[in-house]
Amino acid sequence: MSTVSESYLVGLIGEGITASLTPPMHEAEAAHQGLHYLYRPVDLEVVGRPGTDVGALLAAGRDLGFNAFNITHPCKQLVLAHLDEVAPEAAALGAVNTVLVRDGRFVGHNTDRSGFAAGFRAELPGAATDTVVQVGTGGAGAAVAAALLSEGVATLHLVDLDPERAAERAAALRTMFPDRQVLAAAPAELAELVPAADGVVNTTPVGMHHHPGTPFDPALLDGTQWVADVVYLPVATALVTAARAAGCRVLDGGHMAVGQAADAFALITGRRPDRARMRAHFLSLLGERRPAPAAR
Amino acid sequence: MSTVSESYLVGLIGEGITASLTPPMHEAEAAHQGLHYLYRPVDLEVVGRPGTDVGALLAAGRDLGFNAFNITHPCKQLVLAHLDEVAPEAAALGAVNTVLVRDGRFVGHNTDRSGFAAGFRAELPGAATDTVVQVGTGGAGAAVAAALLSEGVATLHLVDLDPERAAERAAALRTMFPDRQVLAAAPAELAELVPAADGVVNTTPVGMHHHPGTPFDPALLDGTQWVADVVYLPVATALVTAARAAGCRVLDGGHMAVGQAADAFALITGRRPDRARMRAHFLSLLGERRPAPAAR
Repeated sequence: MSTVSESYLVGLIGEGITASLTPPMHEAEAAHQGLHYLYRPVDLEVVGRPGTDVGALLAAGRDLGFNAFNITHPCKQLVLAHLDEVAPEAAALGAVNTVLVRDGRFVGHNTDRSGFAAGFRAELPGAATDTVVQVGTGGAGAAVAAALLSEGVATLHLVDLDPERAAERAAALRTMFPDRQVLAAAPAELAELVPAADGVVNTTPVGMHHHPGTPFDPALLDGTQWVADVVYLPVATALVTAARAAGCRVLDGGHMAVGQAADAFALITGRRPDRARMRAHFLSLLGERRPAPAAR
Repeated sequence: MSTVSESYLVGLIGEGITASLTPPMHEAEAAHQGLHYLYRPVDLEVVGRPGTDVGALLAAGRDLGFNAFNITHPCKQLVLAHLDEVAPEAAALGAVNTVLVRDGRFVGHNTDRSGFAAGFRAELPGAATDTVVQVGTGGAGAAVAAALLSEGVATLHLVDLDPERAAERAAALRTMFPDRQVLAAAPAELAELVPAADGVVNTTPVGMHHHPGTPFDPALLDGTQWVADVVYLPVATALVTAARAAGCRVLDGGHMAVGQAADAFALITGRRPDRARMRAHFLSLLGERRPAPAAR
């Protein structure tokens, strides 16, 4: 019979993701590679289903011919109970953002972690990693902290407005990386920690269009630190702009957004994505989102 | 935000349809038209679900971003209970083979009927329709009979090995077309009916690779009748070959297969398919299915 050309059907399950840039990023890269690839957002708010339905959606998607799903808030932990196999890096985090359907089985991965790490290596080569301060210890923060420790950070200070969450996250990371120092700290300590750090990372939402501001006083930066942000709406957050002005090397939030998509694309297709091309496309998509300039 | 190019996700729900030619027919026509179009077979035997799950599959498909489904055996009647709206031609038949998802609602159509009629008009223009004999009154037979009556057949003789089914089908068609004669007949009557008919139609599986033979004695054809078949594996059935040899005008089964796909494509996309191009592609797909010739 005829050789059917390979095709890919992928979904993104999460809340409020109708306008996510991940589907167009995947589809554009696939088109460049000549792949027949369709990526559908499945916005739980739009279809009126709770996050606890993620297992039912996966099962239905498998029956309907989906090859893979990306998973985001609020399902990255909920999905674990429905998987047949979990990659060790994702299992250690307790969070999965990519599920492959392989011979009817669900296999979980975490490309938030690998995607941040890939951006870090590519954009901040040779960055010092003796002491790093990370602000924010939520879901993205957990993935970023694990990535930083994987990339060699020796001492990681975790700062959160919720001291209990910071302490719990630090303890979990110490279990994963027993030869490193992972310490919870209070926001008041930032004034001492940031000037002494090799690098500072923001994983809070502060800096987003709807959460304006900076996660700490950028006057603490003196140009000797590298600075990473995970916020990408806008990609030039107040922190990123201030850090550049202070002479810091900067990893903006677009790199994690592109990195998670690129790594998921590679897992799904077995092909190497062109990360620079995906980054350029991502920035062009962000550009199209800007409000039109006022008419003259 | 960015203008997302329109894309289509379509499924085919039925038993034993993994190798159906309908998905590649749709995808090839869409590719010719520059559409981003993915068509997935959902074989109930492969996914281990009963035909009664068709409603659950539709609902899941809607949530996962499907635009439409084709529906085939054993779900063409079962699906009716799950629809929000049914086109009159499909409702009268009590069978739906195409479901569109429109603003979250399921709208049923029957393109088996319209597809056969389109092939009939295109391939047998001016065919006499005073008296037609149809052998077979199953699901395909019901759609074909309704199409024949819509195309002007005045007297339709329905022949089936199951006389009760033929009588029931005839009664139902008389209700749909009260100004026509629709009469059940026994196979033994074919010897008189065929020579006197303007046209003869086979809607039984006889003539398929695994059901070899002819549905009636082709010696009854004298070249004055037109002959239509719905079997397309092979497209040159023993009946089609014998009818051509007898000098009959012939509508082979490929036209209904292509016609239902073309009409579904038009409903799903709102675009006019190139039927000749779809037919040529269909025949090439059939050609690829032939066993390879023995090595010399």
